[in-house]
Amino acid sequence: MIKQKAELARTAMRKLAQVSSDVRNSALLAMADQIWLHRNQIIEANQMDLENGRKDNLALPLMNRLALNEEKISTMADNLRQVASLPEPIGEVTRTWERPNGLQIGVMRVPIGLVGVIYESRPNVTVEVSALCLKSGNGVILRGGSEAIHSNTLIAETLRRVAEEFGLEEAIQFVEITDREAVRQMISMHELIDLIVPRGSQEFIRYIMKTSEIPVVGHADGICHVYVDQDADLEMAEQITINAKTQYVAVCNAMETMLVHENVADKFLPTVTQKFVDAEVELRGCDKARKFCPDLVPASEEDWRTEYLDSILSIRVVTDLDEAIDHIESFGSHHSDAIITNNYTTSQRFLKEVDSAAVYVNASTRFTDGYEFGLGAEVGVSTQKLHCRGPMGLEGLTSYKYIVRGTGQIK
Amino acid sequence: MIKQKAELARTAMRKLAQVSSDVRNSALLAMADQIWLHRNQIIEANQMDLENGRKDNLALPLMNRLALNEEKISTMADNLRQVASLPEPIGEVTRTWERPNGLQIGVMRVPIGLVGVIYESRPNVTVEVSALCLKSGNGVILRGGSEAIHSNTLIAETLRRVAEEFGLEEAIQFVEITDREAVRQMISMHELIDLIVPRGSQEFIRYIMKTSEIPVVGHADGICHVYVDQDADLEMAEQITINAKTQYVAVCNAMETMLVHENVADKFLPTVTQKFVDAEVELRGCDKARKFCPDLVPASEEDWRTEYLDSILSIRVVTDLDEAIDHIESFGSHHSDAIITNNYTTSQRFLKEVDSAAVYVNASTRFTDGYEFGLGAEVGVSTQKLHCRGPMGLEGLTSYKYIVRGTGQIK
Repeated sequence: MIKQKAELARTAMRKLAQVSSDVRNSALLAMADQIWLHRNQIIEANQMDLENGRKDNLALPLMNRLALNEEKISTMADNLRQVASLPEPIGEVTRTWERPNGLQIGVMRVPIGLVGVIYESRPNVTVEVSALCLKSGNGVILRGGSEAIHSNTLIAETLRRVAEEFGLEEAIQFVEITDREAVRQMISMHELIDLIVPRGSQEFIRYIMKTSEIPVVGHADGICHVYVDQDADLEMAEQITINAKTQYVAVCNAMETMLVHENVADKFLPTVTQKFVDAEVELRGCDKARKFCPDLVPASEEDWRTEYLDSILSIRVVTDLDEAIDHIESFGSHHSDAIITNNYTTSQRFLKEVDSAAVYVNASTRFTDGYEFGLGAEVGVSTQKLHCRGPMGLEGLTSYKYIVRGTGQIK
Repeated sequence: MIKQKAELARTAMRKLAQVSSDVRNSALLAMADQIWLHRNQIIEANQMDLENGRKDNLALPLMNRLALNEEKISTMADNLRQVASLPEPIGEVTRTWERPNGLQIGVMRVPIGLVGVIYESRPNVTVEVSALCLKSGNGVILRGGSEAIHSNTLIAETLRRVAEEFGLEEAIQFVEITDREAVRQMISMHELIDLIVPRGSQEFIRYIMKTSEIPVVGHADGICHVYVDQDADLEMAEQITINAKTQYVAVCNAMETMLVHENVADKFLPTVTQKFVDAEVELRGCDKARKFCPDLVPASEEDWRTEYLDSILSIRVVTDLDEAIDHIESFGSHHSDAIITNNYTTSQRFLKEVDSAAVYVNASTRFTDGYEFGLGAEVGVSTQKLHCRGPMGLEGLTSYKYIVRGTGQIK
């Protein structure tokens, strides 16, 4: 049955490629209206999911991500409108050149094809991903988690009804089967599905990346660092490290380890750690750090490798920039890493040598996000290096083809 | 042991990222000199491979691809020099913009990391791939076939000795173990190797794509089409179709199926088929085509799906552009497809609707190639849509990172 849905979506894709961007944008705006219009039914369906969640003793963070209210539905509608307003991602010829034999070669942005998205909990993903795929001319096959099945089914039906009005009803396919077998089937349909995007726990994403026969763009852990250099403005360093840790702890671009140059540790650590303690952050430190702040819990190597996603911070004092970069390269997850420094050479070396999706000088790691980077909505943040790195927006949902115009050239 | 080589290469990669492009280019030029200087030893080693090949009854095309002579070694040296002369692919900041909060965001091109290349037969791949990886700052781990082991080992040693002079000896690793187990090990080292590039038979590439735990850029079949439209210049159509089929039959961008609009079939087919027969091309046709050329062998559906790589051509007469595009989308391999037409609307529809790595108007499909497109040397031609499509040159061996410069921004 999933196979049939995938086949239907593939047929719709060719149609989708032929409609103008006006039609796709109009469909997105109509979807925004319909989602808002049906907010009460969606909230009702969501209540059933929440009730089941309570019966199943779903963890609180999952329940929070699952719960919908008028405000969240209003945001969904806004997202649809925002995606409609983004520049057209398809058909753009990004470069053209002429060869000595007169061939005119161009590179044209095209949809990837059929995108399979496997996700959990948050029903707004159903809307966001459908919107991005529709905008970029891709078919999409969505498989949400069992905990959100009532919400997702109603949202998907609402989107589908609108798509139908625009003759695009098969382009968005929702899989109601929520067992692992459905996932297994999807990730083996390499003749029908072109890309798998998994969202959810790290464990789950790793399982998909290892098992899928289809290319995957997933994101792994966010073990992000802020390195406070000896030439840092320490007041700025304090503001940025506190922001990077405490503004929202459960996200992948939050700081998990703070690195501090030993020459400024005595001036910097005692005050900043007090502020972290005031903000109820549990602190763990290396032996050197504990000389300056004896109250720190001793940190083990395990701490350097851990994405806490919680009010916990590990602190390490380093002897120089090299040790800081070595630490980041050895223990980090190549997501987002920042240096606080006023030294030009140091800043340039950090930007060049740290191999992460986003490398910062004098700013909080919390900005790694499609909206904050000005790329518009995002499907997720990729920490892999192939195809798409960092925030995966519309461009990440496109491929390209060479278009070659000749006048009879032969080889 | 392969693991150890991969670990050594990873260490060297960081060094490689720090040396200037002058150093990398000087190393490439020195490699060119040394390959040429050692041509006699390389040819001697190659003789051993050829002798073993004769004992093992290696097929003639394989033997041809294996055989080295002064001319081929001179080309190897030229390739090294040509790669040295290409623009620097690393460190370029392709875009920068400022956000309303003053953050300066840039996109910087960076190496992918450690590239594993698995290939057969042609020893010049050892040189070409090493050169492209060195130029783009990637480490490379090469695993060639048993049939070329003597040639490859000597070439790899020669390259490695030069790399050593420049302090980069571990960046190029050659695996002497030629059994399948070595391949299996490589494609499971997802913590050490960032990208697998397989070259060889279609069967082999499919096996790698299905089994690898590491992202793969491979190329599948080249089932390429030339569609002769009703508005074609028939003289141009004849020149292009004959070139696309006969100029070199054993390559992935050669035409395998010719599609002809029924309105020009009577004028076009009899003369062009006679020229194909003169060029000793075996012709197979659909029922409609056989009405115009009764001598054609009947073509089966199997023919539409076959990459002959040989002097065989299948011919189908279609009623219109839609049927031609349907045929290409149903049976093609999304590699290179051409239309011959003077009709503007028809040409634009073909360019837009045919979903292949390279889509041509009025030129031979034989141009799909890194050199011909002006991209420089290539690792291969990708028919997948993620990361890299079409000729995979230096840019295909790069990723990017976001560099974010702030003045204390917090969220």
